[in-house]
Amino acid sequence: MNYRMILYLLGYVLLLLGGFLLLPVIVALIYGEGDWASLLLTAGICAALGGLLLLCKPKQRRAMQARDGFVVVSLSWIVISLLGALPFYFYGATPSYLDAVFETASGFSTTGASILHNVEAVPHGLLFWRSFTHWLGGMGVLVFMLAVVPLSGDSLYLLKAESPGPSVSKMVPKMRTSAMILYGIYCAMTLLQICAYQLGNLFGWGEISLFDSVCLTFGSAGTGGFAVRNDGLASYAPYIQSVTTVAMILFGVNFSIYFFLICRKFRLIAKNSELKCYLGIILFAVALISLDLTLTGGYFPSVGQTLHHVSFSVGSILTTTGFSTVDFSQWPELSKMVLMSLMVIGACAGSTGGGIKVSRLLILFKSARAELRRLLHPHRVEVMTMDGKRVSSDVIRGTNAFLIFYLIIALGSMLLVSLDGMGTETTVTAVLATLNNIGPGTSILIGPAGNYANFSALSKVVLSLDMLFGRLELFPMLILFRPSTWRKH
Amino acid sequence: MNYRMILYLLGYVLLLLGGFLLLPVIVALIYGEGDWASLLLTAGICAALGGLLLLCKPKQRRAMQARDGFVVVSLSWIVISLLGALPFYFYGATPSYLDAVFETASGFSTTGASILHNVEAVPHGLLFWRSFTHWLGGMGVLVFMLAVVPLSGDSLYLLKAESPGPSVSKMVPKMRTSAMILYGIYCAMTLLQICAYQLGNLFGWGEISLFDSVCLTFGSAGTGGFAVRNDGLASYAPYIQSVTTVAMILFGVNFSIYFFLICRKFRLIAKNSELKCYLGIILFAVALISLDLTLTGGYFPSVGQTLHHVSFSVGSILTTTGFSTVDFSQWPELSKMVLMSLMVIGACAGSTGGGIKVSRLLILFKSARAELRRLLHPHRVEVMTMDGKRVSSDVIRGTNAFLIFYLIIALGSMLLVSLDGMGTETTVTAVLATLNNIGPGTSILIGPAGNYANFSALSKVVLSLDMLFGRLELFPMLILFRPSTWRKH
Repeated sequence: MNYRMILYLLGYVLLLLGGFLLLPVIVALIYGEGDWASLLLTAGICAALGGLLLLCKPKQRRAMQARDGFVVVSLSWIVISLLGALPFYFYGATPSYLDAVFETASGFSTTGASILHNVEAVPHGLLFWRSFTHWLGGMGVLVFMLAVVPLSGDSLYLLKAESPGPSVSKMVPKMRTSAMILYGIYCAMTLLQICAYQLGNLFGWGEISLFDSVCLTFGSAGTGGFAVRNDGLASYAPYIQSVTTVAMILFGVNFSIYFFLICRKFRLIAKNSELKCYLGIILFAVALISLDLTLTGGYFPSVGQTLHHVSFSVGSILTTTGFSTVDFSQWPELSKMVLMSLMVIGACAGSTGGGIKVSRLLILFKSARAELRRLLHPHRVEVMTMDGKRVSSDVIRGTNAFLIFYLIIALGSMLLVSLDGMGTETTVTAVLATLNNIGPGTSILIGPAGNYANFSALSKVVLSLDMLFGRLELFPMLILFRPSTWRKH
Repeated sequence: MNYRMILYLLGYVLLLLGGFLLLPVIVALIYGEGDWASLLLTAGICAALGGLLLLCKPKQRRAMQARDGFVVVSLSWIVISLLGALPFYFYGATPSYLDAVFETASGFSTTGASILHNVEAVPHGLLFWRSFTHWLGGMGVLVFMLAVVPLSGDSLYLLKAESPGPSVSKMVPKMRTSAMILYGIYCAMTLLQICAYQLGNLFGWGEISLFDSVCLTFGSAGTGGFAVRNDGLASYAPYIQSVTTVAMILFGVNFSIYFFLICRKFRLIAKNSELKCYLGIILFAVALISLDLTLTGGYFPSVGQTLHHVSFSVGSILTTTGFSTVDFSQWPELSKMVLMSLMVIGACAGSTGGGIKVSRLLILFKSARAELRRLLHPHRVEVMTMDGKRVSSDVIRGTNAFLIFYLIIALGSMLLVSLDGMGTETTVTAVLATLNNIGPGTSILIGPAGNYANFSALSKVVLSLDMLFGRLELFPMLILFRPSTWRKH
């Protein structure tokens, strides 16, 4: 293990974290509230620790190994969750430090699960920081570092470990340029969404403050789900809700698609099977749930309103954002079952969304179908293709392993959380909502008001780890917790 | 497709079914009840239809293809469920023919899910037939046919399609001898269990009639779960319950182990990892649930009674039998969660039990762990072994495909059953209990009295198919329902 390299990179991450914390300090100063001190103190701590770690600069240039890359990424995410929680704790916004860590892990992992009962009482600086963690976690903290810090050596493993999906979406051969393009698209889309909200003020389609639009944009861009009102998005105007629906769905698309769009490679977009499948799932789910609600009757006064709220909910759950406008725990059983399935499916690979990912499910389904054919014709050679390209057996095996670990982690977490005796439905949805980075998704069975404050300390630790496992797509965390990773070789 | 061959083999299956139906006719005549007529009529119908189909004897001897084998097996199981249901329908024991089919599919697939509210009112001949379907379905109807009918041609596919587990447990090179050995062991163990029950009468450890001991033995041997009293096994003496516990666990073991035992190949038994894992799971689950019940308090008056009922329940659920002595839906959440996991795990490959099977889970887990190692050392060659032998990549891929289809079928069934609006927990457990051939396992969340009578016709069809999918381990049924199977090639 290249310990010096790991500590050195962690130092950079902490310096960045300290820098990011200055933004909410400014917000706090603008609003003249008292939370600036706790934010600034944390920024100082991060800078000091980061500076210390930078002293570990590796003496000789040694190539980074796969294991080092995975360990750096998973350690970084644990450290930023632990340190990013300090402002909430110092200010006393959460009852305990563990609660603050839960809230921050939930933020960075873009889960959006909260232990806060009254969000509106939290000062603006802290609220901004809370939503900002979504934005940072969405595209990835180490991807950001790759874009701004000229790192020597092989940094593919960092990108590989942090970017979601069965294979890395490298847009251009150079790692640093890829990272810059990703963040470029991300920033542009973020600005667009804020502007779209402001149009509501301009044309009188719906009032929203600048602060709210920035925070909600962070929440949708990272597909996180922290809101700034106690009732989520229920009390905003329909225009604001619709902008959010569109934004969530767009941020759930593989960012390569936007890169193709910029490069005018429309044919590559047209034949992208993940995109087609993703949009197909959305249309199918909206149609099915709307039909179910209409036939059962009594949920919404008009077809328009039904479609409005159903598409918001479907977009929110499938992209694993977790915003809500209505209490879908009251919907009929089929609708809830469909939402539960969307929860596990998740968004596209290479997006900011969580879940298993549409492309991974496509690979799994195609490989299973190929197996069925092989059973009938044992001597025929089966080649699996996607988007016209052959899928390597490495990717197929890796995807199968992902599914197996996913099921093991889900089951293990459910057993531990069930010790709390909160009821089977609550336990199952709490684990699925954190592991898939949905968050307020306990909602499906327990209602969007469902809150994680009542879980025991053990469950909060388990669920926090589940959020990080989900965001980093299992493997980096599995490698971190594997005893043989730390044995001398 | 070799249609004549398929119809010809179906004819044999129907003749066998007609023959089997003569046994309950005798039982009915002994008890002097009126159900003998409906049983005899069905036997006649089966014989007539079977005789007709035998006329389709293929003109030239042509090798059977994989596809033909799978189609014969899945068609046979559907046909015997449809015809085996007639006695219940003719006699009027079930409200409708669909209910009778559900009950019979549940019997042959060794599920044990019932739509009968009052079992004790059903005459003895029909009750015997109901339990006898468990015994026949447990080891397999086509395996029986292989053992008694001298079939020409390649019959490996029949055994492959009907025997549970990721690979066929051929004990000796000759297929017919393998089938005879399997049924020999099965009959011997069945007789032993009946004798063990009768010892209870002899030594005064617990009263049980000969009829009850035969029916309960059929239920445990096939890991089915149909009982002959309305309260399941609750009102029998502890001795009778304990015999059942041991029997269920023994019938959940891979029958190769008993063959090794007869051949005195003890070293092969000692290094069998599936057996070790199976026993380990039982011990762990019994310990964990007993601890949970004791710490929560108030369930059983003594440690002895706790262990007695917990080991009965664990054995019943893990082997997918579904007998019950107590209402475990009242147990604390952790215990119920453990039972739910056991439900999905299932018994050993090559046993009469259902579920995913311990060896399949071992293969999945080992292959996922190998993937993790491959991620860290991309250039190292990973060889996966089990019991000292290399596991072929075909088996690994097939097992992964099994898991994927399993999840798809489970999810699809849940969506269809959720249309009934019976509540999420009922829907989920009903599907898992039928797909894993547990049956009265709705028990875990709804209580052992949980009954399938209230589901809609659509749900009953879906759940009946799930039982057959589960018993035949997905692939034969998937091939039957695949449109391209029926296309001209």
